[in-house]
Amino acid sequence: MSKNVDIKVKEQMQLIRRGVAEIIPEEELQQKLGQSIKEKRPLRVKLGLDPTAPDIHLGHTVVLNKLRQFQDLGHEVHLIIGDFTGRIGDPSGKSETRKQLSEEEVEANAATYKEQIFKVLDPEKTIIHFNSEWLMPLNLVDVLNLAGKYTVARMLERDDFDKRYKEGLPIGIHEFMYPLMQGYDSVALKADVELGGTDQKFNLLVGRNLQKEYGLQPQLALTMPILEGTDGVQKMSKSLGNYIGVNEDAYEMFGKTMSITDELIIRYFELVTRVEQAEIDKMEKGMQTGALNPRDVKMRLAREIITIYHNEKEALKAQERFLLVFSQRDIPEDIPEVVVNEKEIWLPKFLQEQGMVDSTSDGRRMIKQGAVKLNGEKCKDENVVVEDEMVIQVGKRKFVKLLLK
Amino acid sequence: MSKNVDIKVKEQMQLIRRGVAEIIPEEELQQKLGQSIKEKRPLRVKLGLDPTAPDIHLGHTVVLNKLRQFQDLGHEVHLIIGDFTGRIGDPSGKSETRKQLSEEEVEANAATYKEQIFKVLDPEKTIIHFNSEWLMPLNLVDVLNLAGKYTVARMLERDDFDKRYKEGLPIGIHEFMYPLMQGYDSVALKADVELGGTDQKFNLLVGRNLQKEYGLQPQLALTMPILEGTDGVQKMSKSLGNYIGVNEDAYEMFGKTMSITDELIIRYFELVTRVEQAEIDKMEKGMQTGALNPRDVKMRLAREIITIYHNEKEALKAQERFLLVFSQRDIPEDIPEVVVNEKEIWLPKFLQEQGMVDSTSDGRRMIKQGAVKLNGEKCKDENVVVEDEMVIQVGKRKFVKLLLK
Repeated sequence: MSKNVDIKVKEQMQLIRRGVAEIIPEEELQQKLGQSIKEKRPLRVKLGLDPTAPDIHLGHTVVLNKLRQFQDLGHEVHLIIGDFTGRIGDPSGKSETRKQLSEEEVEANAATYKEQIFKVLDPEKTIIHFNSEWLMPLNLVDVLNLAGKYTVARMLERDDFDKRYKEGLPIGIHEFMYPLMQGYDSVALKADVELGGTDQKFNLLVGRNLQKEYGLQPQLALTMPILEGTDGVQKMSKSLGNYIGVNEDAYEMFGKTMSITDELIIRYFELVTRVEQAEIDKMEKGMQTGALNPRDVKMRLAREIITIYHNEKEALKAQERFLLVFSQRDIPEDIPEVVVNEKEIWLPKFLQEQGMVDSTSDGRRMIKQGAVKLNGEKCKDENVVVEDEMVIQVGKRKFVKLLLK
Repeated sequence: MSKNVDIKVKEQMQLIRRGVAEIIPEEELQQKLGQSIKEKRPLRVKLGLDPTAPDIHLGHTVVLNKLRQFQDLGHEVHLIIGDFTGRIGDPSGKSETRKQLSEEEVEANAATYKEQIFKVLDPEKTIIHFNSEWLMPLNLVDVLNLAGKYTVARMLERDDFDKRYKEGLPIGIHEFMYPLMQGYDSVALKADVELGGTDQKFNLLVGRNLQKEYGLQPQLALTMPILEGTDGVQKMSKSLGNYIGVNEDAYEMFGKTMSITDELIIRYFELVTRVEQAEIDKMEKGMQTGALNPRDVKMRLAREIITIYHNEKEALKAQERFLLVFSQRDIPEDIPEVVVNEKEIWLPKFLQEQGMVDSTSDGRRMIKQGAVKLNGEKCKDENVVVEDEMVIQVGKRKFVKLLLK
């Protein structure tokens, strides 16, 4: 019997550990899983959501996918929408980014969230909370009680506070309350596990400590790595433009996925798809030995991603279109190649030099009219500067393959 | 007209400045006084009181006397009883001294306070507030708003926080809220001036800054020196036993006042009596030139103090008794003097050697029965060791004046 539980715990741990950055402390998770199996009680797995940014991209889905795995193992996911902080804005008045949201905005954001999140999560095993529910009724006595559970020195250990304090940048005292409020969410919820990116580690541990202070079983902190964007360097973020949004259409997802560097392929498989680990390992080996072409593996990755956010049919259609545009349709087999000894060229001038248009202004006009395609896609910028090898098409029949030295 | 106001401001400033440690900023007080005179609006002068220590001694009356002077100048005194903090105790559970008080205890303490305070203050011009009135209704939004007005770095500038932080001693985050709460009292009250000991300077300035943040006219901070106790070294405090309590009887007050060192006489006159400054200056000069005997000036001081807390008749009675006990009654004019070449002597042995008792055990028995007096007061300790010059009396008629070399 107990051996049976051990085996099940081992199985669950194997899936849970996949792609994880840290589990603090890991032994405790095993104990909790064991208890959960014995008592047939699902674990309460928590994720806090910021109500100001409802546009979800693959970077966000790293933790969502982990939550989904917990659901697949029979556990319960509790999403906490941080409407309370969203609704109060920044009392110091110093932050322009933290603007105050109305109740309607918070609710509209929450609705958008749900729609996107349920592409990853199982709605049946997801419970959504608004933290204003338990934070709004707190009075000053409760707040002092909460604040009294943590010391100034421990709070100043948080990386960003530490940095700002040492650099002499102001930290509002209310900012010390935010990790405590997020931690209090765990108290109110009696969470067993809280998930977050590695940048959330401190906050997750505040929740753990507060639960102890309030006499509860402490939660575990499970952190996931921060996903690199399509550029392979910086973290995926909307403002950096290196993101793949879960609401984007299938063809856009396909193209963006195909643009990631080969080094990211396996990492993306592990963090944003549901493909089994054994399968992923096989692909990794295949690419190492040369048995598999990274481009083909990447196409599979693109299909897997699209299958989650749209469906398999859309995935195949997107692949077909991608292949057509980039390799077959409308592009003859024997295109004249032009080698230019430059790092970048101004397209209208190049077209004129190649006799494809009469003058640079004619070239600009043609581009404007949509008569010029680069690698099969209409060029929209009349003054575009080309820096890469590509097939240039003017009108229906004029093709040239530009090679830069 | 305006000149008239200027003269009145000057007069008020003269009294207000007496004995003060700091007025921050002094120019603003002059402006406020000018406005107050022109608009015939009394200034709102605030003092915060801790509800846990209702036993007032002269150290506390230093600020109370200053408040009384404001009242004498026509201003309004607002006492804030900090019942809110008293009723919540210390949420960190680490401080044994800050125990939680019940509503009844707070009210009982407040009653005791009033009774003592109105010996100094004019009840007609005193308004008493309990800060739970405006602190209790604050919710988390209000608290974050309040906390957002101050930075961590500024709070850590407070001497005791700075010291504890540097020494690695814990500071609960709730402790950062206390100065803010005290400051919020000034906001709620729209105080014009707040008084406190020099150790309160930081907190008074928090109140001033918060009022600005809440769009109010900022209060001035007026700090009073910390009164030395009867030992002349440490600050007056109940736990150090160097205090004169306002509830003590007249004779006890007299004796304790007579025990202060000569250096403190003028300071006590300035800080704890209502004697006019010109009069005090005269006494100071008199002692310097030798025209006045410090002992006589000290007796006047004792009478002035007793007159405030009891009445003039009691003061004179106390002095009479003091003089009788220490100089006249029951002690003959020509007492035999005994010079002993010791620093301390054991009284029973000394009595036996002087033939005043039959044996040391007889001496102990006589002391126990109350038949032995030292400087006119019954000796209660049968094994007393004498270290000072004094008159020793056994029974009605046996006297000796002991001189130690």
